[in-house]
Amino acid sequence: MTAPPHGAHPSGPGRGLPDTQQGMRRRNLARVMHTVRAEGPLSRATVASRIGLTRAAVSTLVDELIRAGLLEELGPERPGRVGRPGSALAVSGQGPAGIGAEIGVDHLAVCAVDLRGVVRARAVRHGTNRGRPPRPVLAELTALVGEVVAEAERSGLRPAGLAVAVPGLVGRDARTVVRAPNLGWHDTDLAPHLPDGMPLTVDNEANFGALAELWLGDGALHEFLHVSAEIGIGGAVVVEGRLLRGTHGFAGELGHVPVRPEGPPCACGGRGCLEQYAGEEAVLRAAGLAPGENGVEVLAERAAQGDKGVRRALRDAGIALGIALTGAVNLLDPEAVVLGGALAALAPWLVPSLERELAERTAGPACTVSVSRLGSEGPLLGAAHSVVRAVLDDPAALSGRA
Amino acid sequence: MTAPPHGAHPSGPGRGLPDTQQGMRRRNLARVMHTVRAEGPLSRATVASRIGLTRAAVSTLVDELIRAGLLEELGPERPGRVGRPGSALAVSGQGPAGIGAEIGVDHLAVCAVDLRGVVRARAVRHGTNRGRPPRPVLAELTALVGEVVAEAERSGLRPAGLAVAVPGLVGRDARTVVRAPNLGWHDTDLAPHLPDGMPLTVDNEANFGALAELWLGDGALHEFLHVSAEIGIGGAVVVEGRLLRGTHGFAGELGHVPVRPEGPPCACGGRGCLEQYAGEEAVLRAAGLAPGENGVEVLAERAAQGDKGVRRALRDAGIALGIALTGAVNLLDPEAVVLGGALAALAPWLVPSLERELAERTAGPACTVSVSRLGSEGPLLGAAHSVVRAVLDDPAALSGRA
Repeated sequence: MTAPPHGAHPSGPGRGLPDTQQGMRRRNLARVMHTVRAEGPLSRATVASRIGLTRAAVSTLVDELIRAGLLEELGPERPGRVGRPGSALAVSGQGPAGIGAEIGVDHLAVCAVDLRGVVRARAVRHGTNRGRPPRPVLAELTALVGEVVAEAERSGLRPAGLAVAVPGLVGRDARTVVRAPNLGWHDTDLAPHLPDGMPLTVDNEANFGALAELWLGDGALHEFLHVSAEIGIGGAVVVEGRLLRGTHGFAGELGHVPVRPEGPPCACGGRGCLEQYAGEEAVLRAAGLAPGENGVEVLAERAAQGDKGVRRALRDAGIALGIALTGAVNLLDPEAVVLGGALAALAPWLVPSLERELAERTAGPACTVSVSRLGSEGPLLGAAHSVVRAVLDDPAALSGRA
Repeated sequence: MTAPPHGAHPSGPGRGLPDTQQGMRRRNLARVMHTVRAEGPLSRATVASRIGLTRAAVSTLVDELIRAGLLEELGPERPGRVGRPGSALAVSGQGPAGIGAEIGVDHLAVCAVDLRGVVRARAVRHGTNRGRPPRPVLAELTALVGEVVAEAERSGLRPAGLAVAVPGLVGRDARTVVRAPNLGWHDTDLAPHLPDGMPLTVDNEANFGALAELWLGDGALHEFLHVSAEIGIGGAVVVEGRLLRGTHGFAGELGHVPVRPEGPPCACGGRGCLEQYAGEEAVLRAAGLAPGENGVEVLAERAAQGDKGVRRALRDAGIALGIALTGAVNLLDPEAVVLGGALAALAPWLVPSLERELAERTAGPACTVSVSRLGSEGPLLGAAHSVVRAVLDDPAALSGRA
């Protein structure tokens, strides 16, 4: 067998399928949705010129999307102009919604996002999940999902799918938590304990955080390494606008990159891993503080107050991050490293030493280090938006005419 | 701006173009070529069933490919069967050829490969290029290319392009050597000094080595890290059957991943980089040998003879490779690490300590370490095959009817 002819296969919908009229129609429906979403409201004629199809072809596609409730007509566009006014098209605010959920070590959260990207419903429950078995946690999450779905439905939305962010490694089946050490879960299939009746996707919180940055971030970045932290350190790699998943779905595990090969032993079996220097517990310990809930908030507060021990511990964590990121930047040559999740809150004290270390150790063009403005909201928003993106990427699958 | 709707764009030919009949035709031409190349000789009917198009549609495509000299008819297929025999199709052995070239530190090489993947002509010149300016080296290479092209043309082939492998970083323009420390070249545009009249692509030797492994290797691997060495250490990352290039084209730089952050200073400006432990000069030094030409051959020979100092030096280099690869495996989650280039010759003495280090430090599923059977031929073959692949991936571009 030779490798698949990657030059010849369309990616996304229709991938691996023959390049038929049907596949072309599906991809063009997606193009119309993305164009209106990105630039709308737009007339049919403008959409046609943007995507390089005839006005007639676009009208047929638009009619199908309106019937499916994915686009809506807003009425005449720019009525002052000469000629018959085109009716402006917009992505529907009453159509499908993405339901995102997050299982955090210290909280549960659920939200509903419409096709326009607006958060339309939201529910949160605070309290630790550390060491709790999956069943009661997932029962609580199911109740929160029920609340959010009910609220979304009251405002005219139809849930199109549920995506759940977890602080751990998820199998390529996108439903089994292989290992989530900070919850104490392993090899747990979440599907039987979550609402049925809508498509389910489970993924690592760092992956969803990176996707949120890709879709909602300031930077228009397409190639970056996203580094986040809750208790452990999460990483995710985006290449050419797509998440790098790896053979087992485990790519992006920055927390266990060796920083000092003879350093302290790590729970992973290695020694001197990044988490031993920049993980929450390690930083608390280096600052002379006891581990506990809300460790990041405590560190940020004390650092802001000028606590020398905390500032030193964060500076050293920045150095360790810089060493681990030097290797990652050499391997991936990204446009930027983005600090998200809890790391965003600690950035003022981590970034100077991190940037210095990276600049001293890398010969090539400088790699920007930036701080996500999504902060700890990233994974939840990324989860909800992943469902919305799936609708935009293959609207025909939802309208039942695939 | 939102990210491009990656679910909606075909990759390769037609990428970014509207999904038109024309783009579909080009992709289907590529599908026919790849199918016949991988499984041929095949009848039109078999091709049609493989790619899911009608017999009539495939016949039109095949006729175009025969007229362009890319496919040829071999005569009746399986004449014993009932019904009118179909004529078997094969990829042409007289059509376009890929010209591959390699600028090594110690040699120059050029070859011609036909669409069937057969090497049809070859020329090599031994002798060091270290410290020589680009102009005379490229004049010699041009002369070798001329010899190989003449020989290929005598056997009925038409050169479709020239691809040149260099031991250094190449810009995204695919013609400028940004930095090749072991030649002493930097910011050198190779195009003015190489034969014109055919499309030129310049790339890093590690990238071409990885592509050769992808296309010609034993393993049917689609996600791997390819590690090679000539004087420095080269790396290249293949994800989902495609080379990961990075923002500046520099992805895969394994040689400057920090192994011991307080280790010896490196020419790159960092400290304790992998090259300081596993590069050719470092290993020779650790074994008490002077640096010189053919260092790898000397090391392999002495290790085979049981030289304890050399074996110890190679074992320690394997440990350093294992530490650097632990980080890479954590980030990329590849199916395998493949040792190619000069490293293949040293594998018996490097691999045991490398594998042990990697196994002890990584918690996840084991990552296979394998040795390329292409060895030091990889970059040259990868270069020539990259031209052949470009023809297979978009035959219409060559037949002038794109």
